[in-house]
Amino acid sequence: MAAAHEPEVIRDKAAMRAWSRRRRAEGKAVAFVPTMGFLHDGHLSLISTAVAAAAGPVAVVVSIYVNPSQFAPTEDLATYPSDFAGDLRKLAATGAVAAVFCPPDLYVRGGAGAGESGGAVSCLEDAGGHAHETWIRVEQLEKGLCGSSRPVFFRGVATVVAKLFNIVEPDIAVFGKKDYQQWRVICRMVRDLDFAIEIIGSEIVREADGLAMSSRNVHLSCEEREKIVEQESLTPVVRIDRPAVICVAAWFGKVRLIDNIEIQAPS
Amino acid sequence: MAAAHEPEVIRDKAAMRAWSRRRRAEGKAVAFVPTMGFLHDGHLSLISTAVAAAAGPVAVVVSIYVNPSQFAPTEDLATYPSDFAGDLRKLAATGAVAAVFCPPDLYVRGGAGAGESGGAVSCLEDAGGHAHETWIRVEQLEKGLCGSSRPVFFRGVATVVAKLFNIVEPDIAVFGKKDYQQWRVICRMVRDLDFAIEIIGSEIVREADGLAMSSRNVHLSCEEREKIVEQESLTPVVRIDRPAVICVAAWFGKVRLIDNIEIQAPS
Repeated sequence: MAAAHEPEVIRDKAAMRAWSRRRRAEGKAVAFVPTMGFLHDGHLSLISTAVAAAAGPVAVVVSIYVNPSQFAPTEDLATYPSDFAGDLRKLAATGAVAAVFCPPDLYVRGGAGAGESGGAVSCLEDAGGHAHETWIRVEQLEKGLCGSSRPVFFRGVATVVAKLFNIVEPDIAVFGKKDYQQWRVICRMVRDLDFAIEIIGSEIVREADGLAMSSRNVHLSCEEREKIVEQESLTPVVRIDRPAVICVAAWFGKVRLIDNIEIQAPS
Repeated sequence: MAAAHEPEVIRDKAAMRAWSRRRRAEGKAVAFVPTMGFLHDGHLSLISTAVAAAAGPVAVVVSIYVNPSQFAPTEDLATYPSDFAGDLRKLAATGAVAAVFCPPDLYVRGGAGAGESGGAVSCLEDAGGHAHETWIRVEQLEKGLCGSSRPVFFRGVATVVAKLFNIVEPDIAVFGKKDYQQWRVICRMVRDLDFAIEIIGSEIVREADGLAMSSRNVHLSCEEREKIVEQESLTPVVRIDRPAVICVAAWFGKVRLIDNIEIQAPS
């Protein structure tokens, strides 16, 4: 962690891949932190985790891309918050980010768009035979928890993460355990498809009032924030594994938030 | 194409990836020819295509792996022909193959196997929460032609090819156009998931009597062979694209064979 260092901003897929290959040729590991932007301290902690995870010299890449295929047409793609200039300032201030990848779009679109109508299951849906049509499903893990209320979510996440992996070609990738099910889905995908990438799960970062940090928190009023953090609202939805984890998802007005707590098995 | 050259036989995934990375560090392109073994001149022509496709120095990798996930339980996985020693001799005789990748198994299996019973949709199906569960679907292209009679086939092909791509990390991969729909599915997957791999479609190689070469031809009697090559048996199933391609699939006894003819649009 040196003084502030302006990251290189890369928008082109081929340029991103060439950049990573140059770093690897220089003997550096490439560590990747995928985000949808509107960065907060939770994201910045992923960067610290990435730096700490590398055994030697490392080049950290942060991507900023709001992935349309993980939003259903009824969800908040249009209102998802963004602040690119602010994000760049925060990343520069860490002194630890070498490149920011922010592609304009990652999907091939068809001719006639299906628009907001019709049988669209995600914000990506297009008519036309030339459009994106390849999807990755992690069939068991995607079903429970958030998967039951957001049926296209993990399909969209797994697919965009595979695309980003193939573009950035990282050695290490860091995901926040706040999105616990997402982290598990990605780990399983990496195992099953033999990606040569080490996946690191990074611990949850909380606000002073205990709320797990999320870009969507910006939509909460002060009153709503107080409710969230009331203990009674943390309704356990299900337990998985041993050691166990309690996961919760809750709507506050129009804002959907998630949180979880890992519990070690008694020794 | 030099004199006979014994290819290196690699069985381990990590060793395969390390081998490819060394070749690339030496300035060579890695060209990949995936097969299910029992090699014939059609396969060997893929190797020539791979060598010709590389602009400079190239290291050719041939994989031999009978992929269980693309066979339904009712299909011919158990009787799929194999001749590993013969395959190695043929590959050595080309003088053009640097490595042969033949892994023992590429899938994580669960605890209690579902075996031949139950609701298994492919020969891979396992019970147990730890088993392979990540599948790639190319949703439009997989549906027509062979996809309608073999519903798990392209899911299994796309998934194993993605796994092999992530293990071998080739710059170029060659697929025979005899398996025309498979070639198109792979091209679409590579585009949609941003694999950094150039896919080459290699022309069909035929026997002297006109039969498209296939490992399954060994199961045909002389009498059956004569039937196949009768023009009347080449029933066009469907046309796709322009220029068009006529695809045919036919059962002869217990042997399912496919063929196709590309037709250029009139100029």
